[in-house]
Amino acid sequence: MTTTRLQQQIAFLVELDKLKTIYRRSYLATDPSRKENDAEHMWHISVMALVLQEYCPVEIDINRVIRLLLLHDVVELDAGDVSVYLRQNNLELVEKEKQAAQRIFGLLPAGQAQEMLAAWTEFEAGQTPEARFARAVDRIMPILLNYYTQGKTWQDVKASYDQVIAVNRKIGDISPQLWDFVKQIIDDSLAKGYLLRRYNC
Amino acid sequence: MTTTRLQQQIAFLVELDKLKTIYRRSYLATDPSRKENDAEHMWHISVMALVLQEYCPVEIDINRVIRLLLLHDVVELDAGDVSVYLRQNNLELVEKEKQAAQRIFGLLPAGQAQEMLAAWTEFEAGQTPEARFARAVDRIMPILLNYYTQGKTWQDVKASYDQVIAVNRKIGDISPQLWDFVKQIIDDSLAKGYLLRRYNC
Repeated sequence: MTTTRLQQQIAFLVELDKLKTIYRRSYLATDPSRKENDAEHMWHISVMALVLQEYCPVEIDINRVIRLLLLHDVVELDAGDVSVYLRQNNLELVEKEKQAAQRIFGLLPAGQAQEMLAAWTEFEAGQTPEARFARAVDRIMPILLNYYTQGKTWQDVKASYDQVIAVNRKIGDISPQLWDFVKQIIDDSLAKGYLLRRYNC
Repeated sequence: MTTTRLQQQIAFLVELDKLKTIYRRSYLATDPSRKENDAEHMWHISVMALVLQEYCPVEIDINRVIRLLLLHDVVELDAGDVSVYLRQNNLELVEKEKQAAQRIFGLLPAGQAQEMLAAWTEFEAGQTPEARFARAVDRIMPILLNYYTQGKTWQDVKASYDQVIAVNRKIGDISPQLWDFVKQIIDDSLAKGYLLRRYNC
């Protein structure tokens, strides 16, 4: 029996169901007893991009931003979630995620696979205004969730104030206004003791 | 202190976090020990619409379909999830969901609140091609999840074959091809015993 185009598409969609079981570092603001999973996260930041698009001073196609966000963590299905504080210069992880993208999007018919792979690659490269805004939104949500759980993830990964600033200040490259706001939240987290200035090793 | 526009938008986004704790009737295909929540569901069917848009013979704006899907269950935050088999002619529920939409979208600045309320209302009314396709996709996913969990939700709510056909055949009004496929899955579920022809009361 040959697999029809529609069967390939359904197989891809069923495979994506697994993302509901891939847990991230962030805890829910609503229920800090558990972490957020990739499916929840991709929905939440897609809506966030929709709501906050006006703070991107560069012209963007918001529909493309949403596509990037709906797909950006699909690779974690094979490669797992890795903290932003451990991602820097992790070439092994980059390779693993590329292979994951090939395998997962490769479940789709060829044209569609290429289209989705291109969206994922665009997000990863972070060069287009759409990818830069998508990546900013992807950074803002964990900060909010940290703030509303009194810094739970920051404490888990022992992220210091300086590290949080260093990793997230890129938000300001695409949206100075959002970075101003986020910086206030980070500063307030330091003041409230949710985040430490430094960790003594 | 006055609340700025951005603070209102952030308050809305933080409120939406609660949807990660509103559980639906469907179980995960990947892990049938737990039910799917609204946040996961809205992400999954948004991607589904993106992948299956070619099966809509009527011209649609897929970007609007995705907006409807990203927001369609937000009201369940106040009104809870109600099985499609119990929704028919439930005027009290309709009223409750309307009030929920007013409250939740009302957290946003006025213009944005109206825009999102309009998207939710369009989905509910189910009249535009975009809303009809969005509603079809919203019906297809639970059938898939039922199939991959051997009819777990159908058995929970004691839905018979005839009921499942009656509730879902509307898929065919907007996409005969998707309905053909879904009908095969439902028929196969009957053959495999995942779904019963009828329940003896």
